[in-house]
Amino acid sequence: MLNPFRKHPELIVHGAHPLNAEPPLPKLRASYLTPQDLLYVRSHGDVPKLDGAAHRVGVDGRVARELSLSVADVQAMQSRTVRAVMQCAGIRRADLRAVRPVKGDPWAAGAIGCADWTGAPLGAVLEAAGAEAGEGLHVAFMCADTCQPSDGGAPYGVSLPMSKALHPDTLVAYAMNGEPLASEHGFPLRIVAPGWAGVRSPKWLSAITVQDRPSGAHQQAADYKLFPPDMRPDTEDLSRGITIEAMPLNCAVTAPAPGAGLKAGGVDVEGYAVASDRAVVRVDVSADGGRTWTQATLEDHGASRWGWTFWHGTLDLPPGEHEICARAWDAAGQTQPALPDDTWNFKGYLSAAWHRLRVTAA
Amino acid sequence: MLNPFRKHPELIVHGAHPLNAEPPLPKLRASYLTPQDLLYVRSHGDVPKLDGAAHRVGVDGRVARELSLSVADVQAMQSRTVRAVMQCAGIRRADLRAVRPVKGDPWAAGAIGCADWTGAPLGAVLEAAGAEAGEGLHVAFMCADTCQPSDGGAPYGVSLPMSKALHPDTLVAYAMNGEPLASEHGFPLRIVAPGWAGVRSPKWLSAITVQDRPSGAHQQAADYKLFPPDMRPDTEDLSRGITIEAMPLNCAVTAPAPGAGLKAGGVDVEGYAVASDRAVVRVDVSADGGRTWTQATLEDHGASRWGWTFWHGTLDLPPGEHEICARAWDAAGQTQPALPDDTWNFKGYLSAAWHRLRVTAA
Repeated sequence: MLNPFRKHPELIVHGAHPLNAEPPLPKLRASYLTPQDLLYVRSHGDVPKLDGAAHRVGVDGRVARELSLSVADVQAMQSRTVRAVMQCAGIRRADLRAVRPVKGDPWAAGAIGCADWTGAPLGAVLEAAGAEAGEGLHVAFMCADTCQPSDGGAPYGVSLPMSKALHPDTLVAYAMNGEPLASEHGFPLRIVAPGWAGVRSPKWLSAITVQDRPSGAHQQAADYKLFPPDMRPDTEDLSRGITIEAMPLNCAVTAPAPGAGLKAGGVDVEGYAVASDRAVVRVDVSADGGRTWTQATLEDHGASRWGWTFWHGTLDLPPGEHEICARAWDAAGQTQPALPDDTWNFKGYLSAAWHRLRVTAA
Repeated sequence: MLNPFRKHPELIVHGAHPLNAEPPLPKLRASYLTPQDLLYVRSHGDVPKLDGAAHRVGVDGRVARELSLSVADVQAMQSRTVRAVMQCAGIRRADLRAVRPVKGDPWAAGAIGCADWTGAPLGAVLEAAGAEAGEGLHVAFMCADTCQPSDGGAPYGVSLPMSKALHPDTLVAYAMNGEPLASEHGFPLRIVAPGWAGVRSPKWLSAITVQDRPSGAHQQAADYKLFPPDMRPDTEDLSRGITIEAMPLNCAVTAPAPGAGLKAGGVDVEGYAVASDRAVVRVDVSADGGRTWTQATLEDHGASRWGWTFWHGTLDLPPGEHEICARAWDAAGQTQPALPDDTWNFKGYLSAAWHRLRVTAA
């Protein structure tokens, strides 16, 4: 049994081998739950063609009994559905590249989506193996893909600290929006670690190991670090990088499009905002680069701790050029930095300044 | 039994009646746990002179049995000590006033402190009363002071949503750093709601009511709202204000002082950073207004979810004028806005941009 990915024809492809692609923003904003064929794809190697009937996931390390679980075994465990955003640590990297050069694909604001993920809580899987659960332990994952030589050339691997692994919303997931995971999204099994960067929700899960240290695999040990702004590729020092976990407050304007020619007058503006495990409490929009602001209307899609917030508003645009901005506020009264310069780092991660675009009204 | 407050002679007094005062920053930074006589004082009326032996706190509303608790009754319950920052929603308001006029006292970065608070968990008090605990309920507090006419002219009142009230770290506290609360800090009993603005940790607690709506008292219903930047006193609309709860990421340089004349060369810089319930993972310092940054050293005072982080570093200052800046990053990769303009609101709350000061080196 395979589950091929039917790539939406409008996906914007940053690279075909491995496939890295994101949806156009208006398509992304068209539904609160992102369809599988529109969810951004971030791959570090070729997509493994796994047989869902034969695939097994090992559980070992500091456990009372080692397990080898089939997909059916995981599906037979307690099932939990969690509504959660999945987003790439490199989302909006293109905005940082406009400041100074950065490494990596120039992701726009489409490297994100929200879905209902269904699986067994990872904690239940660990409990079935009689895993130790002390502070200071980590749950490491190994995957069935082989990464590009530049990504370590080995199977993809990351880990979660035990506290995150045991969070009831952290899943060994087999379904997205009620459908089996498509191949590009991790068929047959992936981790979903809500609120954290997508890197920590590995796809094509093949092994779970409980251990006393973070994963030594390339993705965990040598990549996905937030480096300080003074560091450059030739001065890279892993010890000064912060391992990326939860994602910062962010937002995007999904319409109008950058460079749009619009009819002067009232212009509809819409987008999304996201705040890890916090609620988004306000979104401000500006037609003059942030000198003056009005408040967008936040749409009600029901409370969900790990979801995103859709918003819309109207800006009055007289004839001429305008810089539209959006910024979000979370439940801790936190807002975003104004300029991409304020979050620049040479790997281009966690780009989360005000979203800005220029349009013309006539 | 009274417990008079011995005001530290160096407190900076914004107003004497009622007393509103904060410590000088180097004094504040001198110890990780803030002594009572140095903790900022925010009062809305005269300090009530309560007799600790006679004082009682009522518990009523949606409870199975109404209670009237003495201080000894609370002290006889399970005791819990929580290390937590207490800070005013108006901290660093002075920085916003430099942008445009704001209401309220011009607090600097000293309206904050960190202490070990000891008390009974509020949840245990509610349980003793057989309180209902459903979602949508609120726990309202009434206090023994009488606020200024401009602050509603009634006893101080606020509330917590049930989820925050039942958090195991939310206390009915009777001690700070192992000493009975001083009068100005709420003797004999106050609420401590870690991570939230001080307004929600009321002092001189006299009544606890479980109810189906937030407190209707002035402080909860009509003040301590985060208004949008386009609002002014003459257009104030409470329905567009966000009730302030958790506090945003913030930091301050506690030395050198603004305007200091320093010896050119390596200059020691130190301060604090605070991130509600998140960890502070990095502090950047700059000697050139944020064009270039270096990383401060974070000091280790043991892990505490609600504590603050002390940091220090060295900046190389050639002769001339310099703008020193500091900014913090939290565990979600969140950083602060660069300019006070970016968080300005006419009530002057949640001022949390980069901390900036000008010094001269010769």
